[in-house]
Amino acid sequence: MKYIGIDIGGTNLKAGMVDEGGRLIAVKKMKIASVNDAASLAWTLHALVMDLCKETGTEEAELFSVGVGCPGTVEIRGGSIINTCNLPFHNVPLRRLYHQMSSTPLYIENDANCAALGEFYAGAGRGSKRFITVTLGTGVGGGIIHNGKIYHGSNGMGGEVGHMTVQMNGEPCPCGNVGCWEQYASATALKRQTKAAWEQHPHSILAKVIEEQGRVSGQSAFIAARMGCGVGQEVCDRYIDYLAVGIINLINIFQPETLAIGGGVSNEADEMLLFPLRERVAARVIAGNHEKKTNIVKAELGNDAGLIGAALLGRKKRII
Amino acid sequence: MKYIGIDIGGTNLKAGMVDEGGRLIAVKKMKIASVNDAASLAWTLHALVMDLCKETGTEEAELFSVGVGCPGTVEIRGGSIINTCNLPFHNVPLRRLYHQMSSTPLYIENDANCAALGEFYAGAGRGSKRFITVTLGTGVGGGIIHNGKIYHGSNGMGGEVGHMTVQMNGEPCPCGNVGCWEQYASATALKRQTKAAWEQHPHSILAKVIEEQGRVSGQSAFIAARMGCGVGQEVCDRYIDYLAVGIINLINIFQPETLAIGGGVSNEADEMLLFPLRERVAARVIAGNHEKKTNIVKAELGNDAGLIGAALLGRKKRII
Repeated sequence: MKYIGIDIGGTNLKAGMVDEGGRLIAVKKMKIASVNDAASLAWTLHALVMDLCKETGTEEAELFSVGVGCPGTVEIRGGSIINTCNLPFHNVPLRRLYHQMSSTPLYIENDANCAALGEFYAGAGRGSKRFITVTLGTGVGGGIIHNGKIYHGSNGMGGEVGHMTVQMNGEPCPCGNVGCWEQYASATALKRQTKAAWEQHPHSILAKVIEEQGRVSGQSAFIAARMGCGVGQEVCDRYIDYLAVGIINLINIFQPETLAIGGGVSNEADEMLLFPLRERVAARVIAGNHEKKTNIVKAELGNDAGLIGAALLGRKKRII
Repeated sequence: MKYIGIDIGGTNLKAGMVDEGGRLIAVKKMKIASVNDAASLAWTLHALVMDLCKETGTEEAELFSVGVGCPGTVEIRGGSIINTCNLPFHNVPLRRLYHQMSSTPLYIENDANCAALGEFYAGAGRGSKRFITVTLGTGVGGGIIHNGKIYHGSNGMGGEVGHMTVQMNGEPCPCGNVGCWEQYASATALKRQTKAAWEQHPHSILAKVIEEQGRVSGQSAFIAARMGCGVGQEVCDRYIDYLAVGIINLINIFQPETLAIGGGVSNEADEMLLFPLRERVAARVIAGNHEKKTNIVKAELGNDAGLIGAALLGRKKRII
């Protein structure tokens, strides 16, 4: 049996075929710009599935399921896209439309949850009964996997760990609240913190790094720190403090076997990010000395996590 | 079938017999002071069980199970007390000792978790697939019930919601961290906030209330506020803000069907506490306008929650 996952992104539609173990067998990618209504979305997804089947010599009947990861709000029971942030898909009954062309079961899920499930089946979360992913990107995304299942909450909106208040009366957040963790620990926040330090210290090594890069990136402060820049080091230290606060909160609540951090920032060298993060967490978390404590690791699947997780959305359903 | 629960408290041992629905049939209470080692604890628990059987005309063989709620750390698999805060019980293999006298299955659980389970079976959490209790006492205790089971985390230390950091660089907490929610939202914190306001405003109505009561209590500010005291009202408003922050965090993460607040403070009149709390939460929580949103309620079972929950520790095990 083969599984197909499709990742609906802001720029690309990416489809991949994976085996039972979550290994990618084949991948297809296309621009999403040409897809601008519900019917053409369903048609395009099916065309991608058929392309993958053709390329790998697979009959459509050999597919166990097709899973779709989508940014925004989805209705997993009905198989619909409710809302997407930067795409023109609203209230799309995707499963119904897809089944006009194919009888392969179709599942749909929020893309951050797909990434968490992918890491659970085939990456950093393998074998963890309780597993949490924290993705450091534009915001701070979270995925909670408990007993092999995505935790959704009663209304499908659970797992919004980026919107924990960590600072009362803190930075305003577009969610309507203030002091949300993602205003301190996202890649966007890190860039903002880096930019502020650059403006305050225009003759620092950090400033040189940024001028050479031509822009402020999530790496600027780490690069400067490695070059011995005190200003850059300070930005890194404070950012890791911010990151630790929310991770400690999650561990105090969940005490998961594994917590994986993903997103661009997490690719930083371990001695610059993961190791100091672990130190800060161990010093402050409840059960810091317990023999069973949460293993904080980097996510393993990178950009493929969402695709692999989407593909395996149907897997648990078969096992049960 | 009958169930017996025993609540080990700092002052009293309380034992109760309940039916399948969590209704209390009979209760026995005794001072715990005379019980000062492991063997006498096991013996006393068994004597209480036999007393309850005698009083209700029940054969010991008719008991489905005995459940014990204990403050501190327990090892639920082995049925042992690892550590208690204010009691002399450490590393007590309670199940093994109890089974030298009786073959009734014995379960053991942290007392806050028992209270959450009691509310789930017989109180505010009935019918909630996802249910959270927040108990406002010396600290802020939490209980997470998911699919009818207590959430423990990988090492049994999960659910420490009182130790979420809500203020970076905030008040120090005995847990070793700073800015923990319980330093702002516990009954202890409310008393501290009330005391500070009293000292700053020695001629306020609040000051008169405290002088008449002879002490600062968790009710002082609420009583003063009801009498039109601006100082008291300010204490209440700020306290409810603090309470709301952590509850919003929990809802953003869990989106449970129901979240119940318990402990002495929760007995305050709804228009003084529960209603303004709900308003603040609705204004800031993710999915505040979602048709399915978390119902924030008061716990219903009061001091019996722990006893009833302890009694029903074995119930789920029978159903499965």
